[in-house]
Order: sequence, then structure tokens, then C-alpha cells
Amino acid sequence: EKPLALIAGPCVIEEYDIAFEIAASLKSVTDALEIPFIFKASYDKANRTSVTSFRGPGLREGLKILGRIKSELGVKVLSDVHQISEVGPAAEVLDMLQIPAFLCRQTDLILAVARTGKAVNIKKGQFLAPWDMKNVLEKAASAGNSDLCITERGAMFGYNNLVVDFRGIRIMQDAGWPVIFDATHSVQLPGGAGTSSSGQREFAPVLARAAVAAGADGVFIEVHKDPDRALCDGPNSLKLEDMPEMIRQLKAIREAL
Amino acid sequence: EKPLALIAGPCVIEEYDIAFEIAASLKSVTDALEIPFIFKASYDKANRTSVTSFRGPGLREGLKILGRIKSELGVKVLSDVHQISEVGPAAEVLDMLQIPAFLCRQTDLILAVARTGKAVNIKKGQFLAPWDMKNVLEKAASAGNSDLCITERGAMFGYNNLVVDFRGIRIMQDAGWPVIFDATHSVQLPGGAGTSSSGQREFAPVLARAAVAAGADGVFIEVHKDPDRALCDGPNSLKLEDMPEMIRQLKAIREAL
Amino acid sequence: EKPLALIAGPCVIEEYDIAFEIAASLKSVTDALEIPFIFKASYDKANRTSVTSFRGPGLREGLKILGRIKSELGVKVLSDVHQISEVGPAAEVLDMLQIPAFLCRQTDLILAVARTGKAVNIKKGQFLAPWDMKNVLEKAASAGNSDLCITERGAMFGYNNLVVDFRGIRIMQDAGWPVIFDATHSVQLPGGAGTSSSGQREFAPVLARAAVAAGADGVFIEVHKDPDRALCDGPNSLKLEDMPEMIRQLKAIREAL
Amino acid sequence: EKPLALIAGPCVIEEYDIAFEIAASLKSVTDALEIPFIFKASYDKANRTSVTSFRGPGLREGLKILGRIKSELGVKVLSDVHQISEVGPAAEVLDMLQIPAFLCRQTDLILAVARTGKAVNIKKGQFLAPWDMKNVLEKAASAGNSDLCITERGAMFGYNNLVVDFRGIRIMQDAGWPVIFDATHSVQLPGGAGTSSSGQREFAPVLARAAVAAGADGVFIEVHKDPDRALCDGPNSLKLEDMPEMIRQLKAIREAL
Repeated sequence: EKPLALIAGPCVIEEYDIAFEIAASLKSVTDALEIPFIFKASYDKANRTSVTSFRGPGLREGLKILGRIKSELGVKVLSDVHQISEVGPAAEVLDMLQIPAFLCRQTDLILAVARTGKAVNIKKGQFLAPWDMKNVLEKAASAGNSDLCITERGAMFGYNNLVVDFRGIRIMQDAGWPVIFDATHSVQLPGGAGTSSSGQREFAPVLARAAVAAGADGVFIEVHKDPDRALCDGPNSLKLEDMPEMIRQLKAIREAL
Repeated sequence: EKPLALIAGPCVIEEYDIAFEIAASLKSVTDALEIPFIFKASYDKANRTSVTSFRGPGLREGLKILGRIKSELGVKVLSDVHQISEVGPAAEVLDMLQIPAFLCRQTDLILAVARTGKAVNIKKGQFLAPWDMKNVLEKAASAGNSDLCITERGAMFGYNNLVVDFRGIRIMQDAGWPVIFDATHSVQLPGGAGTSSSGQREFAPVLARAAVAAGADGVFIEVHKDPDRALCDGPNSLKLEDMPEMIRQLKAIREAL
Repeated sequence: EKPLALIAGPCVIEEYDIAFEIAASLKSVTDALEIPFIFKASYDKANRTSVTSFRGPGLREGLKILGRIKSELGVKVLSDVHQISEVGPAAEVLDMLQIPAFLCRQTDLILAVARTGKAVNIKKGQFLAPWDMKNVLEKAASAGNSDLCITERGAMFGYNNLVVDFRGIRIMQDAGWPVIFDATHSVQLPGGAGTSSSGQREFAPVLARAAVAAGADGVFIEVHKDPDRALCDGPNSLKLEDMPEMIRQLKAIREAL
Repeated sequence: EKPLALIAGPCVIEEYDIAFEIAASLKSVTDALEIPFIFKASYDKANRTSVTSFRGPGLREGLKILGRIKSELGVKVLSDVHQISEVGPAAEVLDMLQIPAFLCRQTDLILAVARTGKAVNIKKGQFLAPWDMKNVLEKAASAGNSDLCITERGAMFGYNNLVVDFRGIRIMQDAGWPVIFDATHSVQLPGGAGTSSSGQREFAPVLARAAVAAGADGVFIEVHKDPDRALCDGPNSLKLEDMPEMIRQLKAIREAL
């Protein structure tokens, strides 16, 4: 039986020091609990609600920061990619490339990412059924890559709200792929704050526990030292200081199964 | 910390022997695991999809059977009630009266049930938000009854499908009431079989585990010795023989929290 | 080709004078436009959001008022019924009996109403697919009544919101029944005001026009002289004074088909 | 009062002859009815459900065909664009550039398209509320382009199904933009055929009539000479031969408002 995996980090790279501190802290927690860990931070947020929102340091500078963190801490690193032109440079640094949920139907992007041979995490679109991911994963697999996983992040439920259908974890696993549960995007209220998304971070630990009990292979969590001041996705991000207790509890649930 | 509670039994009373055997078996499992248990079986199914579906033995005969099981096994018993005229006779026998989900907005029925002073379980309508249950429970509480609980059984998600929003368990608990998770109605596909509801019983244990991890106070499960031959809700009912292992696991998750 | 029909009136009977004035005004408009008209007003609102909401004059007093309006103006009258015990007295006065949406699955109530031989209007539950109404209507038809129609009033769309699926009008007509479109309940925001439902009356004329263009057989509209002071469903009720122009336009769309 | 506009054509360019014949036929119908017309055909379908689906002739060949049709028939032409690198060549030929629904949150693509100064049609994502389009349109407007419109094509309603919320037409118009109603994508059943989307073309005329009655500024329709043999979106495409009668009726409804 494989251990629960963790993908975690800030939504976006704000600056090197903040990203490094989060990565170091998460590495220390996951080392102690013997949990496989991938550090997540995006170099660019290409689909913010508003054109004036903070987007990050960009491809070149962002990859440099992720490369430094990777070599200094010895952690694996992940970012999402949004255009085919980003795939080459990203694959030189990242251990895992991520397809954003809105882009999970873009055939050429999926093929380009899969062809790098790197591990690939495809977020499930908010507009897709669990069984719809079969075609998406088969696009990636057709490029000869079998190191693939799916991340569940909720489905649209009326307007400006998401719901997680925990049947989906089992359905997608039965189709043959590991399933990660994204605890913090699943509690977003998309567009809920007018010019940005709102969120309900208080429910992220509840849903993460439910997901592990439902059999998820891993958990994806966005964390920040001070979520209320985060430049992206603050309302649904969790506090770094709450991670040790939360991850310990998720591990305990996994072991009770 | 209170132990996890179990409400379980067949959807409808088919005949005395079957009901007794299920009750006895569940009592023995829950006694061994020290889990509080209420035996559930309906005397009448008043809102079947089709007019020709089996409805049960009716009020008088059904209550007689529930009364016998109660006294012979020393278990608590529950049925749902659908009309004010049923409330009096039902309260003489039942330990807990249940308001069906479709009827959870009928003010007079709620008041009549609450006025009996008996424990009341109100199923959350498939058309209500978790916070909408506040008004429903306040109707019952206005009759001077505080022995109330809510049962979550999924919300409409498009047509002929339900989804469970596990944020709701916490929301309704925070409003002040214990929340039971109905694992088997939550996997119904309402109307999904044309003249009856279909169901996906394979997901009921998955969702039950998720609910306990999310903090549910109890679990509601419809069971049958041979679900494929059950006269009501067979497609979503669980096998009696699978109960010991399933309940043991739910208890383990509860203890890991 | 049958003309468009209109069911309209205040949500609840507040007092005789108000009800009479609305009925008289609507009769004069529909007479002028040669539109068949049924006056609608409920004698009791049995499922208000809150236990403290206004419910109406009750069965006996309410039917007396409806009976007076019927004989004085020569209009047909409709109310909804909620319990089997109401059906007999209601059928003595009303021309059409209505099953509320929340109760459209209660087999015994449907049978009792259908057995009166009166015209029956069954509101489609907010939790049902259009094709699910086939079983509902067949319950009523099994009692030997063929004077049946369905009223569409929106389906749950996430929490505290409804959406109208206009494909449903055609689907239910193809199943063999006339379909009325309820323009004002379709723009309710159920539970949206905390202890009562909110509504968006500004969209009711838009949706009514869409429904007529989609082929609806009739339109159902709740109106009030002063909707902001209505004791029930004010936020989604339309102004009596806006009716002539609105109904004239609906008739013009019907004639353009 | 502006006349109703029409955007129509085959989903994808299959070959020159077919595209030309459709364009010529639609031009003749719309000329006769004095309806402004834009011919729509995609040069590439970049997000087909399956990696093996037909995608079209590609950018270069597709634009050549659209350019020929434009000059030979004197019609305006539209295609969707999926990557920033396509925008320059596309803007040299097309009269209107379209952002696909899945890509309506990709900031850089919207900016690149808007900066061409060409007319822009942004499809509303199946995962967005009507009011969420305000931020999307403001991204485009921030590039100095005011020749913008929105196309409604339904919102996710559970799994593999869409519903059109006709309140949205008014909401988006009130925010300041013309709203086109996409009658044929709105009746898609996304992913409904396993490795492709299914559709219910029989409802497209019903919804188109509803949209015009609700006040839509134009209608978008995918048509094919033989929809059952179309290489893309056949199940929801309409027959070319049915267009004259359908458009005539839409115009009559518009004039009845």
C-alpha cells in the first residue's frame, strides 16, 4: 500500500524568500511523517478573474526560483503550464508539469506536456464528469507517457460555487489513474468576490479528510504564511502553521482504512 | 466525545421475519462495537416514483411489526411519517419519528411530529442548501422539542443524480444540530430507472467513510439480505453481510479524527 | 390552434377586497384579449420558509372568498391543496385543484385530487427532470382523470437559485400533457432572504416571453397591486398595472409562431 | 431598433465545396430577410473530446478557404482562435475572431485578439455565471477594443448536460454588451457519446425562439447539409434546408416584441 502523497505550496511565487520558507517548512513536516512531497508554486497565473490581478514573476524568473529551491532543499517542484511555448523551458526544471483545469481539453497542450516524459498532473475541469477524464488521460497516454495523475478540484454547482463529488475519486481510480484531491481550490467560490474568486478555507481540512477516507492517493493544498495577504487565492489558502497537525491527521485516516 | 451512531434497516417492512432478522443482525454488530443503534423500516412508502410500486404493510400492520421487534430485541425503532393523521399512532410505538426529505417544508407535519416529544429526524430536502435547514429545525424547535437531528441525503445535481456536499455536515452542525449521513439514499439516481429510482450501491461505503471523516455524528444505511430482490430501493441498498466490516471501518475512521 | 391560457392572481388571499380587485382587473384584461383565464389565490401556504410567516385565511374562510369571487365575476378559480382532508371541501368550490411542487410525489394526495374529477394542475417539483413528470401524471391519470396539466416552475440550480430548462416544455408536451409556465415562481431565489424566499421579478416577463416562444400552452403569474407589501412571494410577484401590456405581448409572440 | 443578426455555418471546414455551398445558401436566406450575416467555420477544433477526432484543415489551409468564400460571396467570416500564434494570420482574413468557451479566462489570448482591432465574439464559459462575463469583457476592452459581443452557449447542469439560463441574456446586455445565443452548442450533451459529445438538435429551434423572445441580439447556429454525416458536432447541428423557415420565424418573433 502506497503512502499518501502531498503536493503543496503557495498559489503563485510571490518572491524567493517566501517560497523557500514554505517549501522548507513543508519538507520538514513531510520528512517527519514519511510522506512523499512535491512543492507547488506557479510562475504565472494566466487566467486570473481580472486583468489587473497579480500574475507572478513569469516563466523565466519563476523557473529560476523553482530551480534554486529544488537544488537547495532537494524537493521535487511543480508548476502549471499554459502555452505550448512554455513546455520546453518548464520541463528542464520541473519534476511534474501541471495542466490547469480550464485547459484540460486543449489537445495540443496536453500532447506537448506529455511528450516531455515528465510526470504530468492534469486538473479535472470544473465542467467535466469524472468519466470524462478518461478521454483526457488517453490524449496524454497516446504520447507515450504513463506517469500521469488526475487532480479533482470540484465541479460547478450553480453559479460561483463548486461541489466535490467524492464518487469521482473512485471512478477515476477505477479508470486506471491515481487521483489527488485539491483541498483548497475545491473550496473556492469562483468569481465570488466580484473581481476575484472568494473562498472558504475553513472547509478545506474537512474535505481533505473526506477525500482521504474516500481513498484519494494524495492531497493538494495551497498554503501561505499569511493567507489574508496572499497575492493570489488567499481566501481559500491554508496557514502554513496549521499544516503539521492537518497532515498528521490525514495520515491517521489513511492508516485507518 | 460521543460515539458514532447508526440508523439502519430495510427501506420498507416487507414481512416480519425479514425485518426481524435484519434488526437482530444489526443489533449484534452494533452491540459488539458499542455503537448506538436505531432500527429503521418504513411502514408505508408514500411517494414511490410509480403508482404501481410496492408501498409496505401500511400504518397499523407496520407499527405492530415494529413494536414486536422493539420489544423482542430491545432495540429502538424508527419510521418516517407522511400525514398528520399518522403521527399519533406512530408516536405510541416509535422511538424516533422521521420527516421525509420531500416533506421537510410542510409546516404542520413538522409541528405535529415535534409536539409528540419524541426524538425527530428530519431529512434534508434534495432541493435545500445546508443553511436552509435552520428554518426547518426552528419550526420543530418552536414546538418545544430539542431532541432533533438532520439527515443529509444529497442535493440535486442536474437531472436524475444527487451529489453530497460535505461542507454541509459542518454547516448544519455549526447551526446547532447533530447530522446523520444517509449513505444509501445519497447514491440514489432518482427516477433513473424510468418507473423507479436507480442507485449505485458501490459508492455508499465510499461516501460513508468520507462523511465520518468529515465529522458526521452518525450514519444511516438501508440494508437488505438480498438487495437485488428488495421491494424498494434495492439498487442503492447494501448487503446485510457486509455490515460488520463496514461499520468497523467507520468506527476506526472516527477514532482517527 | 388553442389560445394561450392565463392562470393568475395573488400568491395568497390576504383579504376579500384585494383579491376581488385583482380578479376583476385580470378578467377585464383577458376578456379584451380573448384569453382563457383562471383566477389563482391560495387559502393556505403550508410550506413557508419560516414558521412565523403569514399563511392565509385557511381552508374554510379562503374557500368562501374564492366562491364569492367566482360567482360575482364569473371567473374560474384555483387554489393549491396540501392534505387529503382539504380535497373534498376544495373540490366543491374550485374549478381547478393544484398540487404544490414539493408535494408532487405524494401518491395519495394526487389520487385524492384526481378522483374529484375536477381539472388538476400539478406543479413540477424543483427536484425533477421533465421526463420524471410522466410517472407523476400517470398516477393522476390512473384515477380516471384526463383533465390534467403540468406547471413548470424551474429546477434547482446550485443553492438558493432556480433555472428554467425550456427543453422541458417540449418534453412534457410530447409526453401528452399541456404545459403551463409559472413565470413568477421560476424567478424565486428559494430561501434567498434568510427566513423567506427572495426573487427577481424583473426577469419574470423575460422568461414568460421565452416560454411562449418555446410553445407553452399557458402562463401562470402571481400579481399584486403593491408587490413590495405583499404578505407572500412579494419579491417575485408582478404589478397588477403591468399586466395588460405584458399579456398583450405574450399573445403577439404566440401569434408569431 | 437593430435587426436580429445571424452567425451560422458548419462547425468545422470539411472541404471548400461544402463550406461554399452552406455559405451561399445562408447568404441568400439572410439577404432575402434583411438579416445581417456572418459565416462561421472553424479551421481547427483544438479541444475535441478524443485525440483521434477530426480537427479540420488547420490554420493556413483553413484561412485560405475562408478568404476565398469571403471574396467570392461578399460575406463576413468568423473562426475561433486558440493560441496567440494564430491571432496574427487569423486577423488578416477574418472579420470577427472568436474566443472559445473553454478559453474565455485566458488573459493573454483575449488581449492578443482584442488588440487586432477586429470584431471579437467571446463565448461564455460553461462554468461561468452571466455576471462573471463582466471581468472577461473588461479584459478585452482594456486593449482598446469596443467591438465586442458575448455568445451564450449554456451552463453545466450536472454531468454531460447543459442548461440555458435565459435571465443571463438580459444580465449581460445590461452590463453593456450585445448577446448572441448559440442555439446548437446549447443543446450539446458534452461527452455524452463516450468519445465525443452528443446533442439534441430537436431542441435547437425551441431554444432559439425562446432566446429571441428573451431579447437576444443575434443567433448562432451550426448547420450542415447532412448533419448525421458531419465530421464535428453533427448531433447538435441543424439541416441547411430547414434554415429559411427557422430564420423567418425568429424574425417574426423579434418583430412581435
